[in-house]
Amino acid sequence: MTTLSIQQAQSLVAGALERNATAPANAAAVARALVAAEADGLKGHGLSRVSSYAAQAKVGKVDGRAAPLASRPRPALLSVDAAHGFAYPALDLAIARLPEIARECGVGAAAIRRSHHCGVAGAPVERLAEGGLVALLLANTPSAMAPWGGDKAVFGTNPVAFACPLPDRAPIVVDLSLSKVARGNIVAAKQRGEAIPDDWAFDAKGAPTTDPEAALGGTMAPLGGAKGVALALMVELLAAGLVGANFASEASSFLDATGGPPGTGQLIVAFDPDAFAANGPARFGGLAAMIEAQEGARLPGRRRLESRARAQAHGLTVAEGLIAEIEAL
Amino acid sequence: MTTLSIQQAQSLVAGALERNATAPANAAAVARALVAAEADGLKGHGLSRVSSYAAQAKVGKVDGRAAPLASRPRPALLSVDAAHGFAYPALDLAIARLPEIARECGVGAAAIRRSHHCGVAGAPVERLAEGGLVALLLANTPSAMAPWGGDKAVFGTNPVAFACPLPDRAPIVVDLSLSKVARGNIVAAKQRGEAIPDDWAFDAKGAPTTDPEAALGGTMAPLGGAKGVALALMVELLAAGLVGANFASEASSFLDATGGPPGTGQLIVAFDPDAFAANGPARFGGLAAMIEAQEGARLPGRRRLESRARAQAHGLTVAEGLIAEIEAL
Repeated sequence: MTTLSIQQAQSLVAGALERNATAPANAAAVARALVAAEADGLKGHGLSRVSSYAAQAKVGKVDGRAAPLASRPRPALLSVDAAHGFAYPALDLAIARLPEIARECGVGAAAIRRSHHCGVAGAPVERLAEGGLVALLLANTPSAMAPWGGDKAVFGTNPVAFACPLPDRAPIVVDLSLSKVARGNIVAAKQRGEAIPDDWAFDAKGAPTTDPEAALGGTMAPLGGAKGVALALMVELLAAGLVGANFASEASSFLDATGGPPGTGQLIVAFDPDAFAANGPARFGGLAAMIEAQEGARLPGRRRLESRARAQAHGLTVAEGLIAEIEAL
Repeated sequence: MTTLSIQQAQSLVAGALERNATAPANAAAVARALVAAEADGLKGHGLSRVSSYAAQAKVGKVDGRAAPLASRPRPALLSVDAAHGFAYPALDLAIARLPEIARECGVGAAAIRRSHHCGVAGAPVERLAEGGLVALLLANTPSAMAPWGGDKAVFGTNPVAFACPLPDRAPIVVDLSLSKVARGNIVAAKQRGEAIPDDWAFDAKGAPTTDPEAALGGTMAPLGGAKGVALALMVELLAAGLVGANFASEASSFLDATGGPPGTGQLIVAFDPDAFAANGPARFGGLAAMIEAQEGARLPGRRRLESRARAQAHGLTVAEGLIAEIEAL
């Protein structure tokens, strides 16, 4: 393992992307997002993504040179065309423009279409909350989950993220996907030759399975059964149907370099708490305190902050093989 | 059992409320909502609520004579003070005014504070979707669920509802609460002297329990474990913290006539699909068709429509004891 500073890691990632048909500004935006995920301990959205991203840029599945374009068709709506580029520059654009819209209108929405993997869904809403807004992000992802009672995947694992400011400390961040577990857990069980619990996934006929191979050929189980699928449907309709993006079943993989661009969508809704009630942030802090006063309970997202503080103080610990792989791209 | 027409049932309910310190317009709004729930087969939010509502109006826990008041502090925000009256007149006001706001701004939010039981959370969003909007409703409710790892309830079961229009037929409606099961299931098990499954609830010390008595003295299990609790936190922060309403732990019961008004909150966000993409409703219909093409799968909320059609054609079948109880109020 090698230790890299945040800046060294960003240069490593940005360089690899620039060598693979990606404009410097886009490479920098992607590097910031992936390194931030790595620093937060969310390695599945961190440096492990670089080679797949570079391969997609190289063949044009993602347009590394695209610049996202924003318009404001109505006062509270920012419409963002990610232009089949990486999602991060489009998300950055939405994060830059939403505060003014939310403050002016009380609430503002950013609809991002022709987009790609949004990475850590909690990150954009956290940045909006750092600016004093309350924010919700919904994203759709390629097919993973079937309708309740069905056997063909038509919904992604569809992350839901939310953040709100707290007085004098980092925001509360909720960030979850609507599958019961991440697909990576099933891949890992397969590699170890182990069975999986019977409530993680369904086989291709829609029956619960403990066989990781059958699970990977089938669909992921939603959190909370039929209710979780209903939430996935809601996210699919908002983040893709409303936004004008591809549905999960129309989207190519975020992981490999085959096929056309995924063209998925993200919807961010930001609220200015000052427009709603006089004492919003103090009230958010009151609820946070009620939770933290209970032994064994904590606010969601606090582990990320601890990991981030360690990374900022001591750098990132990265496997040498992964660094060599990125350098070789 | 007796059969009542929709109109007879509404008159029965409105009459009982008018005899219990409720203004005719408010009584009519409550009657429409409770009878609609009964017609949809959602009896827990239907006529069974009348005596508890009337008792609360009689002692002033809910102000039956209150008129909700709306203001528009920012272009996309409707701020509604339910004035400690029933929630339904406030919801009706939001439903009447949100379409114009959403069409003008692209997205609009209604924040309802000093509110009460919102009844069927899917009903207001369904009405907005019947008018062509896509809508989301979040509501908080009195304490029911603990933070993950904790043992004291600080979140309600916090319903999430969503609706979007479909071409040439009734909207898709998602309507769910964030507890794994409704509390009524535990009450019913206790009455039958039966144990409950060990994943429905926790005892007062936060341990899973199969004893319905211990469960009723403890907290409800969320759907999907820690993720469900994170969603309940999100709803609590949006529907109460942002809106300026009481948190679950500050709210009195919706069910009995003791204590002050619950003062809970509701947040509705409505989107004008025409502001987002050219073909929203057609795309929503496309996803609905992908679901319905799968054997065994169906759109959420379809059972309600069937029940509603039966009630419209043949009337409501109501127990004579319940009718007598309402008449005697």
